Amino acid sequence: MRALLLAAAASLSFAHAQGIPEDVKETADMLMRAGLEDRVGYETVEDLTTEVGARLGGSEAEARARDWAVEHLKELGFTDVRVEEFTMPYWERRYEYAAIESPFPQELEIIALGNSVGTPKGGLSGEVVRFETLDDLIEAPMDDALKGKIVFVDEGMTRTQDGSGYGVAVRKRSGAANEGSKRGAIAALIRSVGTDKHRFPHTGGMRYAEDVEPIPTAALSFPDAEQLTRALERGSVKVGLDLAVKTKRQVTSGNVIADIKGQTDEIVVIGGHLDSWDLGTGAVDDGAGIGITTGAAKLILDHIEETGEQPLRTIRLIYWGAEEVGLLGAQAYAEQHADEMDKHAFAAESDFGARKIWKLDTRFGEDKLGLAREMVRVLLPLGVAPGNNMATGGPDVTPLRARGVPVVTPRQNGWDYFDLHHTADDTFDKIDPDELAQNVAVYAAMTWMAANTPGGFRAEPAATASE
Amino acid sequence: MRALLLAAAASLSFAHAQGIPEDVKETADMLMRAGLEDRVGYETVEDLTTEVGARLGGSEAEARARDWAVEHLKELGFTDVRVEEFTMPYWERRYEYAAIESPFPQELEIIALGNSVGTPKGGLSGEVVRFETLDDLIEAPMDDALKGKIVFVDEGMTRTQDGSGYGVAVRKRSGAANEGSKRGAIAALIRSVGTDKHRFPHTGGMRYAEDVEPIPTAALSFPDAEQLTRALERGSVKVGLDLAVKTKRQVTSGNVIADIKGQTDEIVVIGGHLDSWDLGTGAVDDGAGIGITTGAAKLILDHIEETGEQPLRTIRLIYWGAEEVGLLGAQAYAEQHADEMDKHAFAAESDFGARKIWKLDTRFGEDKLGLAREMVRVLLPLGVAPGNNMATGGPDVTPLRARGVPVVTPRQNGWDYFDLHHTADDTFDKIDPDELAQNVAVYAAMTWMAANTPGGFRAEPAATASE
Ligand SMILES: [Zn+2]
Ligand SMILES: [Zn+2]
Ligand SMILES: [Zn+2]
Ligand SMILES: [Zn+2]
Repeated sequence: MRALLLAAAASLSFAHAQGIPEDVKETADMLMRAGLEDRVGYETVEDLTTEVGARLGGSEAEARARDWAVEHLKELGFTDVRVEEFTMPYWERRYEYAAIESPFPQELEIIALGNSVGTPKGGLSGEVVRFETLDDLIEAPMDDALKGKIVFVDEGMTRTQDGSGYGVAVRKRSGAANEGSKRGAIAALIRSVGTDKHRFPHTGGMRYAEDVEPIPTAALSFPDAEQLTRALERGSVKVGLDLAVKTKRQVTSGNVIADIKGQTDEIVVIGGHLDSWDLGTGAVDDGAGIGITTGAAKLILDHIEETGEQPLRTIRLIYWGAEEVGLLGAQAYAEQHADEMDKHAFAAESDFGARKIWKLDTRFGEDKLGLAREMVRVLLPLGVAPGNNMATGGPDVTPLRARGVPVVTPRQNGWDYFDLHHTADDTFDKIDPDELAQNVAVYAAMTWMAANTPGGFRAEPAATASE
Repeated sequence: MRALLLAAAASLSFAHAQGIPEDVKETADMLMRAGLEDRVGYETVEDLTTEVGARLGGSEAEARARDWAVEHLKELGFTDVRVEEFTMPYWERRYEYAAIESPFPQELEIIALGNSVGTPKGGLSGEVVRFETLDDLIEAPMDDALKGKIVFVDEGMTRTQDGSGYGVAVRKRSGAANEGSKRGAIAALIRSVGTDKHRFPHTGGMRYAEDVEPIPTAALSFPDAEQLTRALERGSVKVGLDLAVKTKRQVTSGNVIADIKGQTDEIVVIGGHLDSWDLGTGAVDDGAGIGITTGAAKLILDHIEETGEQPLRTIRLIYWGAEEVGLLGAQAYAEQHADEMDKHAFAAESDFGARKIWKLDTRFGEDKLGLAREMVRVLLPLGVAPGNNMATGGPDVTPLRARGVPVVTPRQNGWDYFDLHHTADDTFDKIDPDELAQNVAVYAAMTWMAANTPGGFRAEPAATASE
């Protein structure tokens, strides 16, 4: 296999003078094979989810996760480890309770959406008005029909390998409350944004629009959305809702950063987010991303120690803080590192579970697409196909991408990611160690190539390009 | 198919003068085919689980279920419908909370086992001692090693088609608390009795042995049992437990009974249990049994109305009350009908979900096994194979069986039954209408044959047999 790879790579390098050097590809190939045997990634997820568990952004548990992270990284041999703190507003749930009050009294499984306001003390109750989709609610007239009612947006989510059903479905997470409130509704319920049929409501962040009165909002599990719909088929339904939250104006969070120093001042960023929602132990979201990128960085660290070979660029492993609650770690990083944005040569976040990577999307300069093809040629034996050049790079690299940093998204099989996403069921036992190791292999090889390809992945200035 | 059936049946009837009459088999065959198209069974489950929801034995919700049942049966055309009340002691959960206190503070998903005592006010905490199996705990010495500790019986359950993994696994539900208490433990935790890997703890009834001090006991979900085990692999673990329950000495429950009158005073009993645990809406346990047997009885009722053909025996549909909490409806029935036990000719309860029936176990007189073979011959086109003659008949016919009443168990595919059993996830959406209809078909045909086979299924007295 290796001979084949190198032959393929060699034939490519004739066409691309500015390609990935042969010796870099050889090391990438070695890292890839080591990655498939890796258990550091898997054990990292195990340790984080067991020894910390759930770790909501800004919470005391997230602070423990940072302590755990620093210790863990030092134990693995990383020498340049630090926490970059930032402050943030804080939201946590206290409790939520919902029940059909009439005509069929029974409890419903709900979960408050992140950032929701609470109900008035003692709860509220109202007649439920169901909308098949968010668009149906958006199209509802601005009259008194929803005044004093509870809106219920029952839109489902389509299961796809690439997770593309999420974008459409997630709009209702803020949309139900905002559009409901504009029309006088007193609360908003949604069918969970998720693809499973289990009795797990899915939480997730929501934002109130500037111009609306905030109303409490929560997600029903799949069976409960079905149940409420069946009840509504039988006539008018009154639901009671009691929801309490706690907020603080300012708490501390932080990004945990470990650098593997390069020869130049350029930086390649990989990582996952350290925080999770409060329900599960954040194994697939995003313990997996932490594990995958730590496993990859550790393989590179070991290679450097064995060979003394220093990468061209610094490889920066970031455990992003407070992602779920609004990419707060990512924003803080962009501010704290504003003056070195142009030194960031490449960035990728792993934040889509632990299933196998099946293609590589990039966002490189158009004149650097040859490098994307070369990378994929190296990763092909792992089942990684060429992707498009419209990668997002992952949520926490959004501010970097916005500032022109080249990013990649190694696309994972997301077929069942939204079964677990933001539920109590997101736990360590759901992770397949071999599939996770494939991710480690891809990240290790890709990161090494990213750190050692001369010229980088940004479009060359026109002048240079014509030389 | 039908011709084939009748031919097969005809050839059999030469050998058995006391066999199932041909016209009875013809009607059974017709009912069977109608059963496959039935939707009454499915809609019965839908209505019960939607319009009542969870219905714990002895609760106000179970009383509403009885009201619903009477109305539902009358709407279907049953004319002889009644409730036979009984009184019972009552237990309900108020709340439960568990957390690892040290070294890795985090909440655990638990559920109190039915009949558990609460913790002292404010909860308790103790070091956890894990036992791989209940037998390991039983074999633990009677010294002070467990004094003040929390025992954790981590025994798993094997998934099988026939549910036979349950018998072994369920012993720990009472055993952990009883064996723990004998050794001075202050609480007992078990890995849930179930086969899924989701974060649903499974509840279920437990009984304290006479000679032990009752200690609070609860089940951990699969992921939480794994989590606690991983924590214990890292050293000593302290868990806090806060559990509150409410009990009443005496409340009212009842069996709902609908009779289709026969020509003789003999009785054929079919049914399911009306109560459920308090977590899900009791769809597979045992809304399904209610639906299946109601669908079957309704087909027979329609046949009688159309043809005027009255069955030999009375067909009695029973919705048993308070099954989960100790077969209380079954016991009350046996007492209330003590003087007509010998008139009960046949009994079966459907209480194993809604998946297809794949064989028919019986408990007939040894001299009546020919009738079992004949029944199976009729049911064969539905995929029903011959079974053994050691049927239990289902939990609520236990007192009948104990009094010599012939019983059958149409064995359902139970491969995933214990994924949902006694969890919040036992909801209507889990039921496949076509698989449920196959059950209706089997029950309709079987019940008709049971009600119309001269001589019945008990062993004949020796004198009669020699005639
Ligand atoms: Zn994430
Ligand atoms: Zn997330
Ligand atoms: Zn049952
Ligand atoms: Zn049960």
